[in-house]
Amino acid sequence: MIVGLGLIGGSYAKGLKKLGFHLSAIARRQETIDYALKNDIIDEGTITADPEFIKKADIVVFALYPHVFKEWIRDNQQFFKPGAIITDVTGVKSCVVYDIQNMLRDDVEFIAAHPMAGKEVYGVENADEKIFYGANYIIVPTEKNTDEAIEICRELALLLQFGRISSLSPEEHDEMIGFVSQLTHCIAITLMNCSDNELLVNYVGDSFRDLTRIARINENMWSELFLLNKDSLLNEMDKFLAEFKSLRDELAAEDTEGMKEKMRISTVRRALFDK
Amino acid sequence: MIVGLGLIGGSYAKGLKKLGFHLSAIARRQETIDYALKNDIIDEGTITADPEFIKKADIVVFALYPHVFKEWIRDNQQFFKPGAIITDVTGVKSCVVYDIQNMLRDDVEFIAAHPMAGKEVYGVENADEKIFYGANYIIVPTEKNTDEAIEICRELALLLQFGRISSLSPEEHDEMIGFVSQLTHCIAITLMNCSDNELLVNYVGDSFRDLTRIARINENMWSELFLLNKDSLLNEMDKFLAEFKSLRDELAAEDTEGMKEKMRISTVRRALFDK
Repeated sequence: MIVGLGLIGGSYAKGLKKLGFHLSAIARRQETIDYALKNDIIDEGTITADPEFIKKADIVVFALYPHVFKEWIRDNQQFFKPGAIITDVTGVKSCVVYDIQNMLRDDVEFIAAHPMAGKEVYGVENADEKIFYGANYIIVPTEKNTDEAIEICRELALLLQFGRISSLSPEEHDEMIGFVSQLTHCIAITLMNCSDNELLVNYVGDSFRDLTRIARINENMWSELFLLNKDSLLNEMDKFLAEFKSLRDELAAEDTEGMKEKMRISTVRRALFDK
Repeated sequence: MIVGLGLIGGSYAKGLKKLGFHLSAIARRQETIDYALKNDIIDEGTITADPEFIKKADIVVFALYPHVFKEWIRDNQQFFKPGAIITDVTGVKSCVVYDIQNMLRDDVEFIAAHPMAGKEVYGVENADEKIFYGANYIIVPTEKNTDEAIEICRELALLLQFGRISSLSPEEHDEMIGFVSQLTHCIAITLMNCSDNELLVNYVGDSFRDLTRIARINENMWSELFLLNKDSLLNEMDKFLAEFKSLRDELAAEDTEGMKEKMRISTVRRALFDK
């Protein structure tokens, strides 16, 4: 079962249904369910937390906003089938994983995961299981997780054709995501806020297009994600500011060697990504 | 004739030769000429500034480092055919265009241009005329330019299948390029200098990959371009720093509305690029 049929939840459903799994889903709006049924993304769906519907599921993937995810578990966990495994796709972990694990019934296990994939568009209409092909997938276990649940989570990633599957603690995950995901969104937002020149589109090259693709952003989701990871993200923003200031000061001082050294480092490090 | 058979010069040659033009080229190394001849990128080539070779060309495209371009004109302009039109692909303009136009013979015209296309790889071996398809092309005329030369420059862009063709003064060009191209390269370099974690490749998503693609950078060319546009680039870096700091401070103060407003602005502005 998938709870939350947005871009990511819809893409999970689409990918798994094509593999022959029976897919049920709970969404907020009936139109979402209707679209998903009509387009063969799910087998059955509902917009209420129907006990009979929920208790049929062996594995449940939550693709909700963090605070909605917690509320849903608080209000509806009594309906889970005993032995059910639940997992998620939430972009922040420390503030979610422990709270959920602490409030959850003993006979249900929550194993957290973060698929490092997305698109700058939203909704089940844009669901596309190909965004996962070869993408990174991070499993975020705690001491409470069993090897069996971690293995089920890994198999889910393999079924969806993710590439590298790795494992981080909630704290390591949040630090990493503050850097590779949240900081980059802050940069893209900032770039687009720097200039209100409507003719920009005539002058940009691929570099500006690439750096701002993610500037089309869901402000409700991302402001929540930023606040829930505030300390890590502030730390990454400050490190970036200091490093950027250093390059700026080298340029001001015409320190060519200093600038070249930073460029050599960036070239060598970035080359590792292309293997 | 193309002078300088790197990625961009080679891509010009490749695109124009496929259209049936006779392509001659001057490069620094014989291997470059041999490769270009063997792969049908040019019709003839040399590694010296051969007067007989140069004086056959009606149109000459310079794809050299800025200081090399100036030296070449100073040393060899006496060999141009009377009435020849010369153009370039140089990434900075104010420090190049006036100097070249001032030293150039009266019977040869230089019309500056900047194709907003590139790749993070180098050399004629990577030449690919498709990088120009639909890309932006900026013509950078001065008061010294004739309508005829500007029109020839525009036709060259149309032949190479560029998309939007626009016109900016050298000063407007350098301010714009400081923002859309040089600032973005500074950001990509900085991101890769922020962390020496070799496991990064396991955790990044497309956002980090996109924002750092251009971090693979030719340090000799780009440090020269940065220095030649120092004032504009410093100005853009400072504007970016202030705007980034503003987002950082909103996060620190948990000013959700302030962050959301920046995200709404970035979303609306970025959406214009996708038309």
